[in-house]
Amino acid sequence: MTSCTTDTKLIISKLTEILGPEGILVSPGEPYDRDSSPYTVTPEVVALPETTEQVQAIVRLANTLSFAIIPRGAGTGTAGGCLPLNGGVVVSLERMKRIITLDTESLYAHVEAGVITKELRDTAAARGLFFPPDPASLETSTLGGNVATNAGGPACVKYGVIRDYVLGVEAVLPDGEIINAGVRTRKGVVGYDMAHLLTGSEGTLGIITSMYLKLVPMPPATVGVAAVFPSLPDAMRTVAAVLGRGHLPSALEFLDHKCLRLVGDKLPFRIADETASLLIIELDGRPEAITPEIETVAAICTEHGATNLMPGGTAEERETIWNVRREVSTRIREHAARSFSEDVVVPIGSIADFIAEVPSFEQKYALDIFAFGHAGDGNIHLILTVPRNLPEDAPAPLMDEGIEAVARRVLALGGTISGEHGVGEAKKHLLPLEIGPASLRLQRGIKALFDPNNIMNPDKVFPAR
Amino acid sequence: MTSCTTDTKLIISKLTEILGPEGILVSPGEPYDRDSSPYTVTPEVVALPETTEQVQAIVRLANTLSFAIIPRGAGTGTAGGCLPLNGGVVVSLERMKRIITLDTESLYAHVEAGVITKELRDTAAARGLFFPPDPASLETSTLGGNVATNAGGPACVKYGVIRDYVLGVEAVLPDGEIINAGVRTRKGVVGYDMAHLLTGSEGTLGIITSMYLKLVPMPPATVGVAAVFPSLPDAMRTVAAVLGRGHLPSALEFLDHKCLRLVGDKLPFRIADETASLLIIELDGRPEAITPEIETVAAICTEHGATNLMPGGTAEERETIWNVRREVSTRIREHAARSFSEDVVVPIGSIADFIAEVPSFEQKYALDIFAFGHAGDGNIHLILTVPRNLPEDAPAPLMDEGIEAVARRVLALGGTISGEHGVGEAKKHLLPLEIGPASLRLQRGIKALFDPNNIMNPDKVFPAR
Repeated sequence: MTSCTTDTKLIISKLTEILGPEGILVSPGEPYDRDSSPYTVTPEVVALPETTEQVQAIVRLANTLSFAIIPRGAGTGTAGGCLPLNGGVVVSLERMKRIITLDTESLYAHVEAGVITKELRDTAAARGLFFPPDPASLETSTLGGNVATNAGGPACVKYGVIRDYVLGVEAVLPDGEIINAGVRTRKGVVGYDMAHLLTGSEGTLGIITSMYLKLVPMPPATVGVAAVFPSLPDAMRTVAAVLGRGHLPSALEFLDHKCLRLVGDKLPFRIADETASLLIIELDGRPEAITPEIETVAAICTEHGATNLMPGGTAEERETIWNVRREVSTRIREHAARSFSEDVVVPIGSIADFIAEVPSFEQKYALDIFAFGHAGDGNIHLILTVPRNLPEDAPAPLMDEGIEAVARRVLALGGTISGEHGVGEAKKHLLPLEIGPASLRLQRGIKALFDPNNIMNPDKVFPAR
Repeated sequence: MTSCTTDTKLIISKLTEILGPEGILVSPGEPYDRDSSPYTVTPEVVALPETTEQVQAIVRLANTLSFAIIPRGAGTGTAGGCLPLNGGVVVSLERMKRIITLDTESLYAHVEAGVITKELRDTAAARGLFFPPDPASLETSTLGGNVATNAGGPACVKYGVIRDYVLGVEAVLPDGEIINAGVRTRKGVVGYDMAHLLTGSEGTLGIITSMYLKLVPMPPATVGVAAVFPSLPDAMRTVAAVLGRGHLPSALEFLDHKCLRLVGDKLPFRIADETASLLIIELDGRPEAITPEIETVAAICTEHGATNLMPGGTAEERETIWNVRREVSTRIREHAARSFSEDVVVPIGSIADFIAEVPSFEQKYALDIFAFGHAGDGNIHLILTVPRNLPEDAPAPLMDEGIEAVARRVLALGGTISGEHGVGEAKKHLLPLEIGPASLRLQRGIKALFDPNNIMNPDKVFPAR
């Protein structure tokens, strides 16, 4: 590490005292130089604590030596939130991966921040319990990262976001104090809701070290159906009918016509219609209940013009359907030279109108835009791309302008510029479009209250003044 | 108002300019002199704004003239939170009672703070939608009050607390700024979670003027069963079995043996067993699903020793069951010369052990204690009473000592001292038992950040230093 300054040498020496030599990495490459955003940077130092007390010692050191701390889970975030883009010590929670308690009577888990999301889901499932949050990255993401970003997923339509499963958190505050916020029970209204203030704060208010997470009874079965509609408005009318008739799907996903065309070869039938769009609907619950119910839902699809149905009664059939959904991202990546993933949310009733406006954005900003996502909660993954092999005389793509125009339109529709991904580095310039001055002033005040020396993931979330 | 000071006269004059003469009440009696706590005090002035701008003008005036503001909904709180115990102007939101939007496609309601909880539930139900939060006071409580206290209810076991239904809030901050916090969509992760910081803050961080609330599809049917068990441990083993076998009841309530004895005459059968306890279990969903499922649940009750079952297949049968539950509070009131309602929460798995300790509290503190509540989430209404007509030689009841001892025991079990009622005035002396110094310091810091002049429901929630 030839570029190592005296300061960095001192920091490394002190961190080694706290963590031992196996507890720090100097100038590591992958995976620490990236997350799932377009940003990359090689950290000078990554600290790998194993205990809350070690985290506390690191934070105290940071206050003494005035270095920044960048908390990191598994690096599956898409907003650059865990990258030391302006220097600082990355604190990776990956070695804090104990499931401390899984209480099957009281229906909660106490887990360290570095536990992989899927591991908790699997461990709970083996005991007949369900941890619903299902971000796309659940096989590799950490629960600490999920909570720090208030992650979502397809299950939100029925089960809510991960915040709804956070009962309490232990965190090391930026001043080095350890806080136990919230409760381990399903209710608690004593004092301000500090646990949920830390949830979604993207590592700027403290390092979450462990969490009490709510579990629910495991629904014994899941069934699904996928339906092709002549157009997205047909699909969205179906969504309204399904929800309006008292069905509460455990997943309710859509692909717009451009996404469906990209993956048409993965479908078991040929789709001629250029505007055809896909809905994926799943129900979970007791088999005697959902087996007839999915038939009713399929009939609602047909009633609203579905031209093709893919059954999802068995695990294999459901896997086939989800493979179509997952393949979209792969195909878009193959298609694009450059892309930006918006994860805007609009009111469910505005999805079709909003997507109908996408061609005008494509034209104005010379972009190719794909839309898919969570029809049941209005959360749209809008992938703005510059295609590979553009003709030389093609108009210059205006990515930044397109991103901002989409954000402004979403806000005008009563939506939000991020439903799952958070602000991090990628969207902080857009934050003031959504957050008014009074709220922004208070949020900066909360940041200053928690972190007077501005050491905890500084420069993230809030734009520079 | 002969006791009116010059200051009060000035305040009344200025408030009259803002609200007109019909917008203020001077020294009113009921209902403004009380809530559902033991406290009473006649307010000097009650302001009745009709718009957010009027609320803003009142708050600005309070900063200028240095008077305290005490926000009030319908006065159904049980912790004294809406009473001007140390003076100040009560701001009642009762005239802000418009349901501004009920969006059946996007599944949310935008309501003013003074809307009665039941009115939203009924209006949503007429459109096929469900607003699950069901505090006991829902026929008279306001949604603003529900949100300000993060109210609960029997539905929490399946549907979560009201916080889980708060998408966004409009509030007038203590400095007179209007803030729009949160979103109107089901997801949103932009900036800190200010909407949920205001939720449950008991009117100390601002006056909530309107809210975006999440609605869900209306479950078409509800069925129930009530079961008598030889003892509470038998009942709680049943709870664990029901949840552990994948059933998620929409209500899961218990009465301990003392409560059951109080209302035994309301049951359709005679209960001989002195330790007999009652479970009430309800399921909601599609009738073809829950009709067989409630039979399975009833069988689980029998398997765990239930001696008597009351069917709840029809609305009338369910009403009979809930009348038993509701009668408990009435009978306790009749029984008690004085009472204090704790609403502690313990982990579900600790309910039976905790209730088994109640006799020792009764003996030590010379109290008569009744326990009932939400078996599905551990929230226990523990009513500490001094019976009427105590014999002259009876030991002196030690109410305050009993309350504190219960709180300490609950916290030792990993619980919380309030699951639904909040802190307000009644429990602020107990707050430091639960909230550690680091969190308390931050919470006081947040209060000071929001409310530098300390005008917004001062003296509540936090104990005097």
